Amino acid sequence: MENTIIKTRVVGVDISLERTTYAIVDIRGNIIASEHMETLTYGSSNEYVTTLCERIIELVSNNGGYDTIRSVGVSAPSANFITGCIENAPNLPWKGVIPLAALMRDQLGLAVGVANDAHATAQGERAYGSAHGMKDFIVLNLGFGVGSCFFSNGREHQGMSGNAGEFGHTCINEQGRACTCGKTGCLESYVSHRGIVLTAQEVMAESDKPSLMRSLERLSPRTIFECCEQGDELAIETYRRTGHVLGVALANYASVVNPEAIILAGGISQAGHWLLDPMKETFEKHVFGGIRGKTKIFASTLDNRTRDVLGASAVAWDVKEYSLFK
Amino acid sequence: MENTIIKTRVVGVDISLERTTYAIVDIRGNIIASEHMETLTYGSSNEYVTTLCERIIELVSNNGGYDTIRSVGVSAPSANFITGCIENAPNLPWKGVIPLAALMRDQLGLAVGVANDAHATAQGERAYGSAHGMKDFIVLNLGFGVGSCFFSNGREHQGMSGNAGEFGHTCINEQGRACTCGKTGCLESYVSHRGIVLTAQEVMAESDKPSLMRSLERLSPRTIFECCEQGDELAIETYRRTGHVLGVALANYASVVNPEAIILAGGISQAGHWLLDPMKETFEKHVFGGIRGKTKIFASTLDNRTRDVLGASAVAWDVKEYSLFK
Amino acid sequence: MENTIIKTRVVGVDISLERTTYAIVDIRGNIIASEHMETLTYGSSNEYVTTLCERIIELVSNNGGYDTIRSVGVSAPSANFITGCIENAPNLPWKGVIPLAALMRDQLGLAVGVANDAHATAQGERAYGSAHGMKDFIVLNLGFGVGSCFFSNGREHQGMSGNAGEFGHTCINEQGRACTCGKTGCLESYVSHRGIVLTAQEVMAESDKPSLMRSLERLSPRTIFECCEQGDELAIETYRRTGHVLGVALANYASVVNPEAIILAGGISQAGHWLLDPMKETFEKHVFGGIRGKTKIFASTLDNRTRDVLGASAVAWDVKEYSLFK
Amino acid sequence: MENTIIKTRVVGVDISLERTTYAIVDIRGNIIASEHMETLTYGSSNEYVTTLCERIIELVSNNGGYDTIRSVGVSAPSANFITGCIENAPNLPWKGVIPLAALMRDQLGLAVGVANDAHATAQGERAYGSAHGMKDFIVLNLGFGVGSCFFSNGREHQGMSGNAGEFGHTCINEQGRACTCGKTGCLESYVSHRGIVLTAQEVMAESDKPSLMRSLERLSPRTIFECCEQGDELAIETYRRTGHVLGVALANYASVVNPEAIILAGGISQAGHWLLDPMKETFEKHVFGGIRGKTKIFASTLDNRTRDVLGASAVAWDVKEYSLFK
Repeated sequence: MENTIIKTRVVGVDISLERTTYAIVDIRGNIIASEHMETLTYGSSNEYVTTLCERIIELVSNNGGYDTIRSVGVSAPSANFITGCIENAPNLPWKGVIPLAALMRDQLGLAVGVANDAHATAQGERAYGSAHGMKDFIVLNLGFGVGSCFFSNGREHQGMSGNAGEFGHTCINEQGRACTCGKTGCLESYVSHRGIVLTAQEVMAESDKPSLMRSLERLSPRTIFECCEQGDELAIETYRRTGHVLGVALANYASVVNPEAIILAGGISQAGHWLLDPMKETFEKHVFGGIRGKTKIFASTLDNRTRDVLGASAVAWDVKEYSLFK
Repeated sequence: MENTIIKTRVVGVDISLERTTYAIVDIRGNIIASEHMETLTYGSSNEYVTTLCERIIELVSNNGGYDTIRSVGVSAPSANFITGCIENAPNLPWKGVIPLAALMRDQLGLAVGVANDAHATAQGERAYGSAHGMKDFIVLNLGFGVGSCFFSNGREHQGMSGNAGEFGHTCINEQGRACTCGKTGCLESYVSHRGIVLTAQEVMAESDKPSLMRSLERLSPRTIFECCEQGDELAIETYRRTGHVLGVALANYASVVNPEAIILAGGISQAGHWLLDPMKETFEKHVFGGIRGKTKIFASTLDNRTRDVLGASAVAWDVKEYSLFK
Repeated sequence: MENTIIKTRVVGVDISLERTTYAIVDIRGNIIASEHMETLTYGSSNEYVTTLCERIIELVSNNGGYDTIRSVGVSAPSANFITGCIENAPNLPWKGVIPLAALMRDQLGLAVGVANDAHATAQGERAYGSAHGMKDFIVLNLGFGVGSCFFSNGREHQGMSGNAGEFGHTCINEQGRACTCGKTGCLESYVSHRGIVLTAQEVMAESDKPSLMRSLERLSPRTIFECCEQGDELAIETYRRTGHVLGVALANYASVVNPEAIILAGGISQAGHWLLDPMKETFEKHVFGGIRGKTKIFASTLDNRTRDVLGASAVAWDVKEYSLFK
Repeated sequence: MENTIIKTRVVGVDISLERTTYAIVDIRGNIIASEHMETLTYGSSNEYVTTLCERIIELVSNNGGYDTIRSVGVSAPSANFITGCIENAPNLPWKGVIPLAALMRDQLGLAVGVANDAHATAQGERAYGSAHGMKDFIVLNLGFGVGSCFFSNGREHQGMSGNAGEFGHTCINEQGRACTCGKTGCLESYVSHRGIVLTAQEVMAESDKPSLMRSLERLSPRTIFECCEQGDELAIETYRRTGHVLGVALANYASVVNPEAIILAGGISQAGHWLLDPMKETFEKHVFGGIRGKTKIFASTLDNRTRDVLGASAVAWDVKEYSLFK
């Protein structure tokens, strides 16, 4: 009698602007093998997907073979789990709607699930990180944009059309900064790579105090953070304002969701207490009184380099197994 | 062999400041019998609960008897389904935490579930109203306060401690009005009985235009609405501002929840298009671009007088059956 | 600003061998209009579906119009909610797999959900019948076959491929009767129209006692039941044996599912206590000791003629709204 | 601002007759530290629980400390997750109902969840084993008894009172063997340590063929298995009959549940193909035709020694965090 082959691994793919990482990950989140390639050097999304699939096939062939792989999960900007598509990603060169899951499934012969980066991060935090065991929590992804995802009673909240969690485009100030999305006053205009740099410039313009930031060749969340670490007053003020804005917005988010925890991931969350302390202070001041002091807020403890493929691998486990050959 | 008695009715209780309504409701939402009593004339919460239970027992005895009643559901301000308690209700005379479900269960010998008014309304809309068949939707309760409840993939989102949905205490303007909750700029300071009256006063003070509102003996959402109906410019402006504020806040809410619909209930929602038109216009302008034009927004179609006991009855069906006698 | 049209009705379609009933049903289970047509007089499934859709369109046009209809639910033998197909129905003339939901959706321009009769009955019992408010329960459909459906924590259990609940084809006696499905000893060979008649014949053959059954022109569950009502010993023995077999099988079912209730629907359940009393006695003897005496068992209290379209209408509310025109 | 302490470990406790194992397990299923003690040498359940808690506290103190432990999960015979109690365990010396979760929580100051061994095994298979990513599956625990647990749409099916899965006490032959539970013909009388030995004795009595089993000092599933490995015809027949009985019962189970997989764990599953081959053959013959050939059946691939504490640790993640000190 033929034996059932138990598939104990998945492929997790993290698509970000800087590069695409694809890895074989086992049930417990061990990364068996991992490689990366460019994201932006391909002429079309089709060319990119074809190359990516060839690379994945090669990686799998060299590391245990196809029979060990259950499915594939992809974390990508503006990806939608319900439709399987990347939908009008503002930061990617591929315009319109790209049926990424279908394209990859056809080339790989395996089930493929896609999710935007915040949703993938949340799945990873639940499977392998600090949200393990939590039923209701929010994960924020702070980087070039502000993504979020929350879980409701143990399940990812996806919303009617898979678009839930667009926290970055909530309005925090109607008369505020112009957002790249065309709206005004979006949270993302303040709490993002671009937003923090703008705030730093505002802070410097408003004051004639000396600042290490004034002599920086390039302002970035990281260089501003380094100024904070050296005690630079205006850099600290920059993160204070950022934390304050985020604190108000998160208090509103938490007042409607009532999460056990809010977990911050992404490059900007690495600013640590310079961001988190003012954020928490404002949060507690503004959150609904009945839950004041009851929400855990902290930065992700997963390793930065592996978080994204781990999250993508968690998405892979969430799709139904499928094979061309049975 | 003894027969199983099928219990096809529940008791729904709506506790509001003006009065308490208790009714026998069947599976399909037919109100078999209904009565009401005062809410605020009792010296203590115990006295109130005892009277309420005696009245319920009498109503049930006169209308089919105890054997027909499966359970009891209560809609009350600041009630928490998870704990079964009214928790620090700002508008009720009973301070602190009142274990309403336990008190009533002991006196009635039946399972009792409690929910705050917005959650009860949402359950009612799902069971018998326009949210029937929807998996993800938001219900707002606009009255003396602003309550909300949303469903996630077909289940009520309760949050970690049952406090989800406190939309009324999200901050829409840090430098805004003082809220009765002690915070500043809460939505409830603008979109509530009190908030609309304040806005009307502001509108009149800012302008020297004539207005029917100036000669009103008592400003209230209703009287202001009536002025709108007569074409009063400042009254219309009052609701326009109210709708605008609500539109921004709802756009933020919808951007994270991605609901199929937003349903408005409660006294203030009766202002109709004077409120809804500016609200929708602002909503569509501010909501995340990916879902623009895709969210249904409308006022509840359930009858005002029965909505609350229907909602409470839906809560009753959500608790496990329990009987002292088996 | 355009108004949202709230759709408060669905179409429920019950396809059975004898006839097809289609009705407009509102949220609370009121049947607004109902008609029926032949099921078996059409040359092909396509012809049948086309006629059915034309009839539905006409019914809807005459009763409120298309704008009031949210979706369509169909109860059909061997239908699968997940695939939307009728799959190899042994009793229908249409062989193979018929994509009923897709065919009807294309002709009606509305979302269509299909479910087999037991699943539709269970949905109806939950929405409008005695299972309302229950989280875990089993519904049996006893007629020409034996269908079942159970709910797990408030949701219909569908199984991996939508085939869950095939209780009729569980083996109760390896050396037992040949089943029409090709297997041996299926429950359906004993507890079904055909099975009960076979049992009656066996009972008569084993005994030389007089019996009203001996002079019946046509043995059927109904005529045998009528003999029971007149005190006929062998007819009573027929139902006793049937109830016994069903009792053992149900005890096994309940031991793994631990339901709050088992609800019996379908023609054969109308035999009442002649079937239920021996069934319950055997059930309690064989069920797992830890839940003995704790499972409610009773016949459906929904009206026989409306149960099936009500169940189909409940399926309609379970599919996502869809319209060709938006 | 104080830091949130992220608790990344739980304690898993496996209570079996032979011994009690308690271990610290991290999110990914790594066993940080593990110890064991006797189960049956204590005068009362209280004495046992007190010793167990003291041991756990010591283990935790020596391995990272209390602050790292989120909660505790216990796998125990006849334990019920919903009530937190061991309920009338036939094989344990402690009679009646023991509120194990409450007793341990009071002594440990941590949230404690309990589950019977089959439910804990299923949780472990889902978290760290071959059921990872599956929504609908059955896990069998074959040892001194026959336990089972199934998942419905990604959630453990517990039933109304937490008693679901009592597959061992389903009746497979009304005239069959007396079960230790007082009933007749239970599956557990055939497919268990005791049952297999009885079958071996029957097989030997029916035949005068020579057999290695005849000269065994002690018949047990393991010694009979060893005879199979040496080609002993009667030993093979013993497992063939066992597999056949199990195959019929599982076919019935799968016909109502429609699982993606059936996973066998426990000592008896180690008989490998001697049990599984006849079992699968019978299974496919008896299962509902619509799912024939579509159910994966295999033995657990988790390590025998760690499976049980892993399963218990998975239960620990399923309870809400709780601490005496906040």
